Amino acid sequence: MQSMVARAHCRTLGRMSIRSRVPRPAARRLSLYLRELMLRARDGSATISSRQLGDALGLTDAQVRKDLAHFGQFGQPGVGYRCIDLLERLRTIMGVDRPWPCVLVGAGNIGRALLAYRPFVHGGFEIKAVFERSRELVGTTIAGRKVRPIEDLARGVAAVNAEIGIVAVPAEAAPAIAAMLVGVRIRGILNFTPCRLDVPPSIPVRNVDVSVALEQLAFDISSMAAPDES
Amino acid sequence: MQSMVARAHCRTLGRMSIRSRVPRPAARRLSLYLRELMLRARDGSATISSRQLGDALGLTDAQVRKDLAHFGQFGQPGVGYRCIDLLERLRTIMGVDRPWPCVLVGAGNIGRALLAYRPFVHGGFEIKAVFERSRELVGTTIAGRKVRPIEDLARGVAAVNAEIGIVAVPAEAAPAIAAMLVGVRIRGILNFTPCRLDVPPSIPVRNVDVSVALEQLAFDISSMAAPDES
Repeated sequence: MQSMVARAHCRTLGRMSIRSRVPRPAARRLSLYLRELMLRARDGSATISSRQLGDALGLTDAQVRKDLAHFGQFGQPGVGYRCIDLLERLRTIMGVDRPWPCVLVGAGNIGRALLAYRPFVHGGFEIKAVFERSRELVGTTIAGRKVRPIEDLARGVAAVNAEIGIVAVPAEAAPAIAAMLVGVRIRGILNFTPCRLDVPPSIPVRNVDVSVALEQLAFDISSMAAPDES
Repeated sequence: MQSMVARAHCRTLGRMSIRSRVPRPAARRLSLYLRELMLRARDGSATISSRQLGDALGLTDAQVRKDLAHFGQFGQPGVGYRCIDLLERLRTIMGVDRPWPCVLVGAGNIGRALLAYRPFVHGGFEIKAVFERSRELVGTTIAGRKVRPIEDLARGVAAVNAEIGIVAVPAEAAPAIAAMLVGVRIRGILNFTPCRLDVPPSIPVRNVDVSVALEQLAFDISSMAAPDES
């Protein structure tokens, strides 16, 4: 019994110090591995090799092995990784093995899309409350959630123990909303505005920016049109 | 006159071979530089130093200089970059100095959000036509665009000379839609589904995936909770 407790403790320490050592691009690839493993596990695959995982995602097997090596030894030579084990380990490392209560600020088009978005319903991320500044939207019901006035944010975040704040307001309102979310001790922000949010470094922000994605695509297409002739 | 033509030709060749040499993370940062320069230019700033640009974006001045050095010499020692010049140069390099006609496939929540999304209206990216499989949505009008049946895709893409296809359909429909877009010779795809699209390497795909962004945020928050104790 004592050894189980000790092991659990070590595993937690190990997991946490590992997380902060993982480079950001590798962290991003973990999401891709997670998706592929979920598909394989659903299809009944027992094992997967680093080459199979790499092929499915357009990565080399060396890259896959290097990324996964951050988290210890999983693979068996000649066999590969056990899908279920690796999936569970990745879910723990990513922190998605538990619920993440979210609040949404902004009930415009993006907010509505998010409320109807299936990964929220099926995953651990759940929008527990919706806040809006516009008097016309406050009091309406969207996808079963009542839209509340932005003045209720502090009370609402506390009531649902929200950890993630989703910012889906017009760009000019974003700095004020970010400041409010910091004030109510939100732990992280998902930002749908093109505005870069100025928050303390202890509060991570991830941006979903459609205009950046479009520009990058324009860049990619322009590069394709011109094979490197140098 | 002849020298002007020659110069224009050289510039085109130069720009194109540069593009394919730029690493992907640097290409992503170009979008950030572009945004910051647009703000500065709007505020009337004539020049900006690599340190100012870096500070605004959380990058070192060395990183800024290295990224911009891919595209030649811009800065003047002790003065910095001329905002307007650098902005124009970046727009040309990114390929966003010209219109990009787009078609949207899928008129659900995400599609609706995109149709109402301002960067599309103000930027060079314009959704010229909307296609949908659902008989209930075909024929309706969203944000001034009539929703057309998916069977019209080939004709619609040709009619508006669309170069970018935006996929905002349910995940299970994504592979078939991607194949249709490849078939009608679209040049690039913006993918809003969690599905990885299997298209020829000559057709770039950029993904906007909310569930990946949420997972990454969960990972970031979990890392924050545990400062590296090793």
